[in-house]
Amino acid sequence: MSSTFGTNLKISIFGQSHSDSIGVVVDGFPAGFEIDMEELQEFMNRRAPGKSKNSTKRVERDKPEFLSGLVDDITCGAPLSAVIKNQDVRSQDYKEIEEVPRPGHADLTARVKYFGSEDYRGGGHFSGRLTAPLCIAGGIAIQMLREEGIEIKTRIVEIGGTKLKGSEETRQKKMDDIIAAVKKEGDSVGGIVECVISGVPAGLGHPMFDGIENRISQGIFGIPAIKGIEFGAGFDAARMKGSENNDEYIRDKEASSLDAELDSWITTKSNNAGGILGGITNGQDIVFRIAVKPTPSIAKEQNSVNYNTGEEVKLKVKGRHDPCIVPRVLPCVEAVAAIAILDYML
Amino acid sequence: MSSTFGTNLKISIFGQSHSDSIGVVVDGFPAGFEIDMEELQEFMNRRAPGKSKNSTKRVERDKPEFLSGLVDDITCGAPLSAVIKNQDVRSQDYKEIEEVPRPGHADLTARVKYFGSEDYRGGGHFSGRLTAPLCIAGGIAIQMLREEGIEIKTRIVEIGGTKLKGSEETRQKKMDDIIAAVKKEGDSVGGIVECVISGVPAGLGHPMFDGIENRISQGIFGIPAIKGIEFGAGFDAARMKGSENNDEYIRDKEASSLDAELDSWITTKSNNAGGILGGITNGQDIVFRIAVKPTPSIAKEQNSVNYNTGEEVKLKVKGRHDPCIVPRVLPCVEAVAAIAILDYML
Amino acid sequence: MSSTFGTNLKISIFGQSHSDSIGVVVDGFPAGFEIDMEELQEFMNRRAPGKSKNSTKRVERDKPEFLSGLVDDITCGAPLSAVIKNQDVRSQDYKEIEEVPRPGHADLTARVKYFGSEDYRGGGHFSGRLTAPLCIAGGIAIQMLREEGIEIKTRIVEIGGTKLKGSEETRQKKMDDIIAAVKKEGDSVGGIVECVISGVPAGLGHPMFDGIENRISQGIFGIPAIKGIEFGAGFDAARMKGSENNDEYIRDKEASSLDAELDSWITTKSNNAGGILGGITNGQDIVFRIAVKPTPSIAKEQNSVNYNTGEEVKLKVKGRHDPCIVPRVLPCVEAVAAIAILDYML
Amino acid sequence: MSSTFGTNLKISIFGQSHSDSIGVVVDGFPAGFEIDMEELQEFMNRRAPGKSKNSTKRVERDKPEFLSGLVDDITCGAPLSAVIKNQDVRSQDYKEIEEVPRPGHADLTARVKYFGSEDYRGGGHFSGRLTAPLCIAGGIAIQMLREEGIEIKTRIVEIGGTKLKGSEETRQKKMDDIIAAVKKEGDSVGGIVECVISGVPAGLGHPMFDGIENRISQGIFGIPAIKGIEFGAGFDAARMKGSENNDEYIRDKEASSLDAELDSWITTKSNNAGGILGGITNGQDIVFRIAVKPTPSIAKEQNSVNYNTGEEVKLKVKGRHDPCIVPRVLPCVEAVAAIAILDYML
Repeated sequence: MSSTFGTNLKISIFGQSHSDSIGVVVDGFPAGFEIDMEELQEFMNRRAPGKSKNSTKRVERDKPEFLSGLVDDITCGAPLSAVIKNQDVRSQDYKEIEEVPRPGHADLTARVKYFGSEDYRGGGHFSGRLTAPLCIAGGIAIQMLREEGIEIKTRIVEIGGTKLKGSEETRQKKMDDIIAAVKKEGDSVGGIVECVISGVPAGLGHPMFDGIENRISQGIFGIPAIKGIEFGAGFDAARMKGSENNDEYIRDKEASSLDAELDSWITTKSNNAGGILGGITNGQDIVFRIAVKPTPSIAKEQNSVNYNTGEEVKLKVKGRHDPCIVPRVLPCVEAVAAIAILDYML
Repeated sequence: MSSTFGTNLKISIFGQSHSDSIGVVVDGFPAGFEIDMEELQEFMNRRAPGKSKNSTKRVERDKPEFLSGLVDDITCGAPLSAVIKNQDVRSQDYKEIEEVPRPGHADLTARVKYFGSEDYRGGGHFSGRLTAPLCIAGGIAIQMLREEGIEIKTRIVEIGGTKLKGSEETRQKKMDDIIAAVKKEGDSVGGIVECVISGVPAGLGHPMFDGIENRISQGIFGIPAIKGIEFGAGFDAARMKGSENNDEYIRDKEASSLDAELDSWITTKSNNAGGILGGITNGQDIVFRIAVKPTPSIAKEQNSVNYNTGEEVKLKVKGRHDPCIVPRVLPCVEAVAAIAILDYML
Repeated sequence: MSSTFGTNLKISIFGQSHSDSIGVVVDGFPAGFEIDMEELQEFMNRRAPGKSKNSTKRVERDKPEFLSGLVDDITCGAPLSAVIKNQDVRSQDYKEIEEVPRPGHADLTARVKYFGSEDYRGGGHFSGRLTAPLCIAGGIAIQMLREEGIEIKTRIVEIGGTKLKGSEETRQKKMDDIIAAVKKEGDSVGGIVECVISGVPAGLGHPMFDGIENRISQGIFGIPAIKGIEFGAGFDAARMKGSENNDEYIRDKEASSLDAELDSWITTKSNNAGGILGGITNGQDIVFRIAVKPTPSIAKEQNSVNYNTGEEVKLKVKGRHDPCIVPRVLPCVEAVAAIAILDYML
Repeated sequence: MSSTFGTNLKISIFGQSHSDSIGVVVDGFPAGFEIDMEELQEFMNRRAPGKSKNSTKRVERDKPEFLSGLVDDITCGAPLSAVIKNQDVRSQDYKEIEEVPRPGHADLTARVKYFGSEDYRGGGHFSGRLTAPLCIAGGIAIQMLREEGIEIKTRIVEIGGTKLKGSEETRQKKMDDIIAAVKKEGDSVGGIVECVISGVPAGLGHPMFDGIENRISQGIFGIPAIKGIEFGAGFDAARMKGSENNDEYIRDKEASSLDAELDSWITTKSNNAGGILGGITNGQDIVFRIAVKPTPSIAKEQNSVNYNTGEEVKLKVKGRHDPCIVPRVLPCVEAVAAIAILDYML
C-alpha cells in the first residue's frame, strides 16, 4: 500500500496539504514506553515551516494531538494515532494549478492516477507537509532506539552543488548565503544529506530483498524530492578497486574475550560498506547519503500546458514556498532511519 | 521476508551457492502466456558465468528446469517454479573461510545472524549466484511487458572510474582493457549501470512508500554488490537550481485529441525526473543508475581475523572469481525492473 | 499487523474504548466515488449503542468526522481517514478491573501481552466499540459494491439457542423476549448470524491461502465475540455424503450464448459450497454463518482473581452493557464482507 | 498472494497434481535447528495416499528432497526448499474433465479465473496433493515447537454425521465401517476434526485482524475441503448464556509465586474460549474444530454441463479417489497449526 511502511512496526500516513488534518497510525510500538513530549515537539519543530527567514511563510504549529495508543504519555500496546490540524491553509493560491500542472510536482501524475478527482490544493497527499506525521512516528522511534544505545545523526554535506566544510558556523553561513541568493532570483536549490546511525548491533537485517539498504531506501523515497541514495562509499565504491573498497578486518585490541559477540572484537579498518554486508549490519556505523532535488515550486516563469484547453501557458508558482527544503529534510531522514531500524529490532 | 519481492507478482528466491539447487517461485504471473524458452535461455546466458576470458571459470549451464506453473510452456495461473542444479561446485575452495571472513563479503554478518550455522560455502544464500533465479522470473516478466509495449535497456556508463564513451565497439574495448589490467594485479573493479524503461504508461506507481523509486530500489538492493541508486538526474539534481531541474511541460504537437490520456498530448522538454513524479510514472522513460562495487573476492592479500583463534591473519581469496561483475549485473537489473513494473500493471 | 486488514484495500483501525477518539485509515479506495453520507450514517446507526431498551445505555453519536481522503464527499485517491470522538466515557466504572480480570474478556491476555501497560478502561483496543470505525470503512465499501451490482444482507438465524422463524415481526418479537429474559437475570445470550453476498462475479479469490474463505474469516474474527464461521453447508457438509453435498451443474436455460462468461450459462442446482470452490467464487451467492458468543459482561456474580494480591474474588461487572450484541454485530459482518470483496475487485 | 502464508515464517507452496513436482519454500526458520528426518517422514506418511484399503490407490512416496536451506540436516538460515516428484501420474484419467467440470471441485472456478489456461489434470494447483509440501513445512515446525514445550494433537470427532466415541479401537472400527459402506455405494463422507495445541504460553497473538483465530483460520481454509472452523465452544457458545460460557478465573494452588507470569498462577475453570481471548492466548489449550466436506470425487453419476458444447451431461468421476479424506486431513491441520504458532514465536 502506498502510504504504509514497515513490517513489525507499521506506520500508515494520511492527509492532504489542505485537508482537515494530517496524521499517522503506528501499529507495533512496544507497550510501556513513556514518550518525552517536549523532546518530540523539539524534533517536530526542526521540520516545521515558518521558522527561518529563508523558509516558507506558512506557519503551522505542527503540534501532534494524540488520539489513541497512550495512557498518560505511556504506550499501551494499542495502535498509536496522532493528528495535526491544518490551520494556515490558503487554498486560493492553488486555484491556477487546478488547470495547469506545475513542473517538477506530482500534479499531472496525480491527475492521471486519480482520474481528475485528485486534491490538487497544495499538492494534496504528495505535499512535503505529509512528512510531519512521519516525524511524529520517527521522533518516538528515535527515543526508543536511544534506550538501546542507538543514535541517529544527519548533516548537510552539499548545498546547490557546493560542498559544506569547516565549522558548524561557517557551514551554516555558507548555506544561508547560497539560499538567500537563489531566493532573490525566485529560484531554488537542492543538496546532499548524510545520515549516520551509530550503536547498531551486528546481525540486523536480512539477505536479498529485506536488507538494511532495501528497507531504508524504500522509506527514504517516501520523502518527497529525494532522487538518489547511496550507502557507505556508494557511487564512489564503483570507482575504487576491490583492494581499496574492501574493509579489512582487524581485532579490536580492547575487547577482552573471544566468547563475546563477534562484532565486539572483530572490527574493520575502514567503513566503505557503510556498516552493511549482505543486507545485514556488521556493527559499524550505518552511513548513507541522499540527493534532495531543488524545490520545484519557484517564482520564476515556467512553461506548462492547460489540461482543459490544451494551450501552452506560462506559470509562476504562487503559494509560500521554501527556496531550499534541505534543512527541513534532516529530521525526516532521521525519522525514516529510526522507523526502519526499530522495526528490525522488534 | 528476506527473499521475497513483490505485491501482486511475488517472487520467492531460494538456494545457496553450493546447495543442491537454486530456484524461484513466482506467484502471480497471469495465466495464458506462452514463454519463449529460447529467448529466456539467451537472457539467462547474459548473466551466466564462464563465458568470457575475463569472467569466472565456474561453468554452469544455468538452464532452468520448470517444476510447476506451466502446461506446454504456457502459464496456467498456478505458481511458477523453476530450479537450476548447482553442478560445478568446488566447496573445498572455501575451507579457509569457515574460520576467516573475507573482507567485503557477508561472511561475518551471516555468521552473526545465523549463530554459526550459516552455509559459508561460496557465500551461501548471499552469493551472486542467487541472481540466476531472479533472472528466470525477470526474463519472463520482460517478455510479458513487451506485449504491453514496454522495453527495458541497460548499459554500462562507467567502469572502474572511467566513463565509457563512443561506439559500442570502443566502449567494449575500453572496458576489456580496464578489466584485464586489474585482473593482472589480482584486483577487481566496479562500475555504474544505467537502466531505461520505455513505453511505460503514465499513472503507474503510488505516492509515498510504494512509488516507483521505492519499489525499484527495494528490488535493486537485492542484487549483491549494489551500493547506490539514483533516478533521473539523481545526485546531479541536488546540484541544479529548480529552474534547471524542473521538466517543463509542452504540448505534443503530433497528438490529435485532448480527449485522450493526458500523457499522450502533454510531454516534457527534459527528463530530469527520470519519468517519475510523486512516485508515479508521467509517461516519460523511467531512467535510473546504480553503483556496482568492485568484486570483493580478490587474489591480493588482505587482512582478516580468525573467528576461532582470534588471530589476525593474511587472506588470499581462492575460488574462481570475476575481476568485474558489472557486465553480468545488466540482466539482473533488467530483471528487477521488469518484475517491479509488471507487478504494478497486474 | 494486528489492526490492519486487506491487500489492495487496506484498513487500519485505531483507538481504545476510552481514548480521545477511535478511527480508521483506508488506503486504496478508488478515486472519484461520491459517498452518500446520509446512507453511511444510517448504516453506522445500526451498529451504534443506546438505541433500544435492551441495548447498552452508553450513548454515542458515532458520527464519523472525515480528516482526509475526500474533497466535497468525493474520494480523491489519498488515504481516507475518519474519527469518532469518544464522548460518553465513564472510566470510573472500570476502576475495579484494573486489578481483577473479567471472565470472557481480554483483560488478562492484554495485561500479559502489554506488560501491565494496557489501557484496561472499557476493554481498551479490544472493545466492541472499535467496530465503529470498521463500519465507516465497510459502509463506504458497501456503497461502492452496489455500483457493481453486489448486495450484502445479514440476518439473525438463531438467538440463545433458539432458531428464529416466521415473519420478520415474529422473529423480532421472539428475539426481544429472549433478550429481555436474560437481561432480567443479569445474564446475556449469543446467537448465529447468516450473511449472503449476491451479485458477485465468478472468478474472484485465489487458491490456497488467499481465497474467499481465508480472507473473510481473517476479517470476521476481527470482530470481538465471534467464535466460529462456516461457509455454505458448513459443519452440516461434514454430515452429508458427497452425492448430497456436491452442487450439480445445470445449464441456465435463459442464458443465450455460449460465448459469454461461463457463469452466465452454467449454474448449480444447490449451493452447499456457499458460492466458493477452491477459494474462488463460482457466481452463486456467497453464504456464511458466524457464531457470536454471549456478551461476557454480565451483572451476575463471577469468580476471578486479583492480579496484585492473588486473592480469589467475586466480581459483578459494572458498566453499561448489552445483554445481547448480536443485532449490533450485523452491520459489522456486512462491513467485513464488503471490505474483503471490494479488495478482490480492485 | 494466494499460495503464501505467514508473516515472520513465510511458506510459499507450488506445484500442480500432475506437474513435474510439488514443493515448498520456507523463509524464516531459525538457523541451527537439526531436523529429525525420520520423524518428518513418518509425519509425511500419515498424509500420504495409498496406505489403507479405503484410501486412494495412487501411490506416492511423498519423500521430500531438500534443495536448499540445510547443511547436514541443520537449518542454515537461508530459505529452506523441498520438492516431491509427482511419480504415479495418470493424466489420461482426467481427459473428460477438460470439458466437463466435476461438481464440488474447483474445475469451473479455475477455468474462469485462468481464462481456460488452467491445468485441469488432477485438479491442478487445487488438488489435495498440494497439502504434501504444507506438511513438509509443518512437520518441521512441529519439531521446533516441541523444543518449546508445545504439542499439537488432532483427532476425528465425527465422521459422516456419526460422533466417534469410546476407545481408540472402537472409534477406528466405527469409522472404517462407515467409510467402507459409502465406498460400496460409490459415494463419500466428510467429518469433523478437533485440534488441541497445548503448552502455548500466554500473550501470543494480536488484537483484531492478526489474532490466533484470524491466523489459524486463514491457514486452515488453505486445506481443500474445509468448510467451517470454530474455536473453543464455537457454535455452541452461541447457544449458551454468558454465565455459562465465560471461563471463570481461579488461582492455581500449586503455583508458588505471584511474581511469575500471570498465566502461571491464574487459570480458568473451563475452556470455552479455546485458549484465546481478544485474539491472544491465555495459557490454556488452544482448541478448534473444523468441518471437512465429503470428497467431491465420487463414482456415482452426477449432472454437469460441457463447457464447449453447452450440453448437459452425466458424469462419473474417474481417477483414484478416497471415499473419505478426513484421516489424511489430520496432519495437514497439525501442520497449519504449527506454522501459525511458530510464526508468532519468532
